[in-house]
Amino acid sequence: MKLLGLAGAALLVATPLLAQDAAVEAAAPTGEAAEHTVFIFNSLLFLIGGFLVFWMAAGFAMLEAGLVRSKNVTMQLTKNIALFSLAAIMYYLIGYNLMYPLGNWSIGTDETGGYLGAFGVAVLEAVGIAAEDADDLSYASTGSDFFFQLMFCATTASIVSGTLAERIKLWPFLVFTIILTGLIYPIQASWKWGGGFLDSQFGFLDFAGSTVVHSVGGWAALAGAILLGARKGKYGANGQVNPILGSNLALATLGTFILWLGWFGFNGGSQLAMGTVGDVADVSRIFANTNAAAAGGAVVALLLTQLVYGKVDLTMVLNGALAGLVSITAEPLTPTLGMATLIGGVGGVIVVFGVPFLDKLKIDDVVGAIPVHLFAGIWGTLAVLLTNSDATFMGQLMPIIIVGVFVFVVSFVVWTILKATMGIRVDEEAEVNGLDMAELGMEAYPEFGKG
Amino acid sequence: MKLLGLAGAALLVATPLLAQDAAVEAAAPTGEAAEHTVFIFNSLLFLIGGFLVFWMAAGFAMLEAGLVRSKNVTMQLTKNIALFSLAAIMYYLIGYNLMYPLGNWSIGTDETGGYLGAFGVAVLEAVGIAAEDADDLSYASTGSDFFFQLMFCATTASIVSGTLAERIKLWPFLVFTIILTGLIYPIQASWKWGGGFLDSQFGFLDFAGSTVVHSVGGWAALAGAILLGARKGKYGANGQVNPILGSNLALATLGTFILWLGWFGFNGGSQLAMGTVGDVADVSRIFANTNAAAAGGAVVALLLTQLVYGKVDLTMVLNGALAGLVSITAEPLTPTLGMATLIGGVGGVIVVFGVPFLDKLKIDDVVGAIPVHLFAGIWGTLAVLLTNSDATFMGQLMPIIIVGVFVFVVSFVVWTILKATMGIRVDEEAEVNGLDMAELGMEAYPEFGKG
Amino acid sequence: MKLLGLAGAALLVATPLLAQDAAVEAAAPTGEAAEHTVFIFNSLLFLIGGFLVFWMAAGFAMLEAGLVRSKNVTMQLTKNIALFSLAAIMYYLIGYNLMYPLGNWSIGTDETGGYLGAFGVAVLEAVGIAAEDADDLSYASTGSDFFFQLMFCATTASIVSGTLAERIKLWPFLVFTIILTGLIYPIQASWKWGGGFLDSQFGFLDFAGSTVVHSVGGWAALAGAILLGARKGKYGANGQVNPILGSNLALATLGTFILWLGWFGFNGGSQLAMGTVGDVADVSRIFANTNAAAAGGAVVALLLTQLVYGKVDLTMVLNGALAGLVSITAEPLTPTLGMATLIGGVGGVIVVFGVPFLDKLKIDDVVGAIPVHLFAGIWGTLAVLLTNSDATFMGQLMPIIIVGVFVFVVSFVVWTILKATMGIRVDEEAEVNGLDMAELGMEAYPEFGKG
Repeated sequence: MKLLGLAGAALLVATPLLAQDAAVEAAAPTGEAAEHTVFIFNSLLFLIGGFLVFWMAAGFAMLEAGLVRSKNVTMQLTKNIALFSLAAIMYYLIGYNLMYPLGNWSIGTDETGGYLGAFGVAVLEAVGIAAEDADDLSYASTGSDFFFQLMFCATTASIVSGTLAERIKLWPFLVFTIILTGLIYPIQASWKWGGGFLDSQFGFLDFAGSTVVHSVGGWAALAGAILLGARKGKYGANGQVNPILGSNLALATLGTFILWLGWFGFNGGSQLAMGTVGDVADVSRIFANTNAAAAGGAVVALLLTQLVYGKVDLTMVLNGALAGLVSITAEPLTPTLGMATLIGGVGGVIVVFGVPFLDKLKIDDVVGAIPVHLFAGIWGTLAVLLTNSDATFMGQLMPIIIVGVFVFVVSFVVWTILKATMGIRVDEEAEVNGLDMAELGMEAYPEFGKG
Repeated sequence: MKLLGLAGAALLVATPLLAQDAAVEAAAPTGEAAEHTVFIFNSLLFLIGGFLVFWMAAGFAMLEAGLVRSKNVTMQLTKNIALFSLAAIMYYLIGYNLMYPLGNWSIGTDETGGYLGAFGVAVLEAVGIAAEDADDLSYASTGSDFFFQLMFCATTASIVSGTLAERIKLWPFLVFTIILTGLIYPIQASWKWGGGFLDSQFGFLDFAGSTVVHSVGGWAALAGAILLGARKGKYGANGQVNPILGSNLALATLGTFILWLGWFGFNGGSQLAMGTVGDVADVSRIFANTNAAAAGGAVVALLLTQLVYGKVDLTMVLNGALAGLVSITAEPLTPTLGMATLIGGVGGVIVVFGVPFLDKLKIDDVVGAIPVHLFAGIWGTLAVLLTNSDATFMGQLMPIIIVGVFVFVVSFVVWTILKATMGIRVDEEAEVNGLDMAELGMEAYPEFGKG
Repeated sequence: MKLLGLAGAALLVATPLLAQDAAVEAAAPTGEAAEHTVFIFNSLLFLIGGFLVFWMAAGFAMLEAGLVRSKNVTMQLTKNIALFSLAAIMYYLIGYNLMYPLGNWSIGTDETGGYLGAFGVAVLEAVGIAAEDADDLSYASTGSDFFFQLMFCATTASIVSGTLAERIKLWPFLVFTIILTGLIYPIQASWKWGGGFLDSQFGFLDFAGSTVVHSVGGWAALAGAILLGARKGKYGANGQVNPILGSNLALATLGTFILWLGWFGFNGGSQLAMGTVGDVADVSRIFANTNAAAAGGAVVALLLTQLVYGKVDLTMVLNGALAGLVSITAEPLTPTLGMATLIGGVGGVIVVFGVPFLDKLKIDDVVGAIPVHLFAGIWGTLAVLLTNSDATFMGQLMPIIIVGVFVFVVSFVVWTILKATMGIRVDEEAEVNGLDMAELGMEAYPEFGKG
């Protein structure tokens, strides 16, 4: 049973809804048959949500492959399929129970606040389980929950790979991925979704993970980007920023559409239930709001790049849509459609100004993942205050800071160790010639002549 | 509640089925719990159907990006993500209630015939709704209905962008999109699916929108294509037609597969219910028939291009599959698998002869959207007569004409105004150099040398 | 009713589960309403599973288009969309009833063993069916079953097209596809999933088709590859193997992600039911295990290529993931997550050594489909013995051999006849210039200069 998971978020939304919830409860189907039906619907939500979030792994791969230069495409593809596969194994080996200790905290307790979850591999329900033997008949099958939660873990790693593209070595990146998906992500996620201290002591609200997933990827990427340094030629001696163009905007656009699609599962599945009229109506609201926020982010980036730069910038529009999605992720349920559009729209603003802001700091983020996932993630987490009266300013701000400091510091230490031991950056010749030939000996587009 | 939506279509199919429906009703689960389960299944159908139709936006983007020249790919991608985002906002602001006035017609009544729906933004059910407070417990959640219907609106705009590619300016196109998705589409769709006069006075049958969605996109595209004129060099002085090749047939094929996949949601979701044995069996028939029609269209185009041109033409096969899908859209339920294959196959014939026919008229349709969506849409609407005894010839023909005249005339006027004010066509130099550099300053494939 | 379909596999797993199943039965919702709900859930599983497996057709198309040279991409795309369309028609015309004769064997009986199924076109349930008139109220709608099973048939043909790429003529390939999907696949599939002699006499276990689907495609491909011969220049006079690089690894990676996604439907849908707590928990296990096996295959290929070749090979990693998926397909339910990862990991080993092994035999398999689908398919079928105590060594081995001999011999004969009549290989000039211009007169990337 994983009742303490994201359900915590849903429960915390409940103050103004308690009466309604009670009503739902009262009106809900009763009896054994109905309980089974609810279990099936909830599990099905996780399966559908899970395969949609899985699909986001392909979205990140295409987005990143499209935004790097052709000489680094094979490497970017390799990183993406490898990081997902490693995340799947690490989350099985250690992450799942570390994130959902079900009260069995290694450090802390449910009451005083959990800080470090349980160690052990994930175990699914037995084959052909009888209803009364289900791990938690009032929730969903453990297999569906594992499948769904695993995908969130993998998403975090995908975010990092985009920022650090075009100059990081393969294996140190994968070692970092192992630590991120096996330890860093699950530990901090347990603080909120496992019923840990951010949940119990701060009343932190983060429905589907603007902070818990997206900012985590962003902080880990930021630490890596600082230690790794910018790509050769990105920043001129006189402070000018040299644009480095993506090699395939069709792929980048495809990746964005894939992510947009996957996000319906990401946010919708985080309702954790669809077995009652109230729950399925909420999942429906979430789908509609998630779409509205993406549209808002895209349209704002469209208008702003036209106004600010005199020309629409497709990569900004794509990142605007993604920032809209990240922005609504902390609270996709309570906003109206109009408010969701606006919350997403602010994400679009963040991207348009966040990308040049990072460049001013000479932090080289190849695909704009830090503005999209970290900056918009912080915005989205604070935006919960706009529409959910259970959120408190400090209850949102402090977890943002705590998660940020934890992830950034630990990541920085890990990257530093990797840098000192394996080295994290390819040598200059490899960077100039492209990581594909230098590190992998295989070009992504061997026949397409260079322009 | 949106009972009057597509459900109208389903009800009209009912004469020979009334007895069966009554039987279903009688045999159906009774009581409160069962009613909730039906509501959840119906909502889930809209959510799954909706995300599949969302995915079609990516399909159109890839299809069109693959069929234009590389110098115009960034523009085509930009248009596609922008049009979808604008459609989402317009449908929220005005389209949804204009299309589904629920009897509150601004002009007309349910009895005498509705002509212009209600004005107002879309409002979803409250968070954590109690079952008895659901907008329509016998239907589905409003959020799921909105999410699903929105995607149809966006599809219409996607159709237009393909025809007008490679020479239309970005912003006039987007202004047209706003009018199409906010006004033109919802108004005419209300005539059928909102319970308006085409439904009540003509007994018009259009299950998932061969006319209401696809022909509308086609008519709007046709009006634009006439006013915009052909691409430079497409039609020679002596009447010869110069083929202009698509730059990336892998993308075009991917787009076609995406659309094919999405169409299961498009047609299947239009059953509007899957909470009874009869409904889920119908949805299943629709999935199978939709697939059969696409296969029929593809195979016929395969054979015909071999026979007529001596060589198989992949772009014709792709468009054949799409035309098959459009052809079955007006009635994907009543045909047998064999008849569905044939109806789709005629769509393949239409494409193979419709594309050169348009060229003879010197109407330059870059991706073949007019044959696929307009010609096959008309065919599909008439083909309802073959398998559904409730359809009448005039009941099908008159709405085709009424919708066609309305959409074509209004679109023509709007395009004319846009031409006179903003101008709709890029200048000759921009067209020669490509819209990507001229309008957006960004190439889609900056590193791939030109052959 | 299709009770004898894949359900046979599930039933055979049952010995240790019979008590549990009985418990499930006892605890399960009872009464008419519950029976309808189960029917709807089961049908929905097939619809979702079916569209996911449909999506695999796009995955094969992208994988293959990415792994051939750019001069053969249009041909590869054409073959893929054509083979799927022809499979859809053939499975309707003949395959479905040949595969699921429901006891009406043309040769054999259920008791003594069925060898050749029934002839006739597929007929779906009538429109608006009443519950009591459903073909099998205890199973799922016939339309959903047809839709799901059709997709498996098409998968088999997709496998063949990859191996034989870059030198086979279009039409002989399509004629073979017709025979494969109309006769070869359904006949041998009936032996297991239609309740035929492999099921009744051998107790053969093949949950979702490591043998019945994947090895069949592999054997058919092997027969074709032997008769077709290797591509010009692939094998040097002195025994050296000349690598021929794929033209677009981004597409190949996309294809792999698509296949991975589709596989959740492939394996999960093969549970054939999700209307009880036990069934949905099993489907969830299958999703999680399927993912674990893919991850295992990818990671093993990642590590092995680094160790053996000193460099990670992306195409091996992609094929490793796919081999992991094929490996778990015969039994995705009974393994633990850890065992599923290992079973998939062995698939990765098979690919890394299977690809050069085939090259030693001078069998030119363009995309590595034979190691992935045939070798790993055999491994996966034997691996059932590791976790399912109902499997017997001979009960697994004999069907592998019987199916292999049948498919290989019949395919060899068909290819031989095609070679003698139509000819199966393009002439040398066409091969050098590329099949796209020679056979189709249309390049996939006409503007991208050759490097």
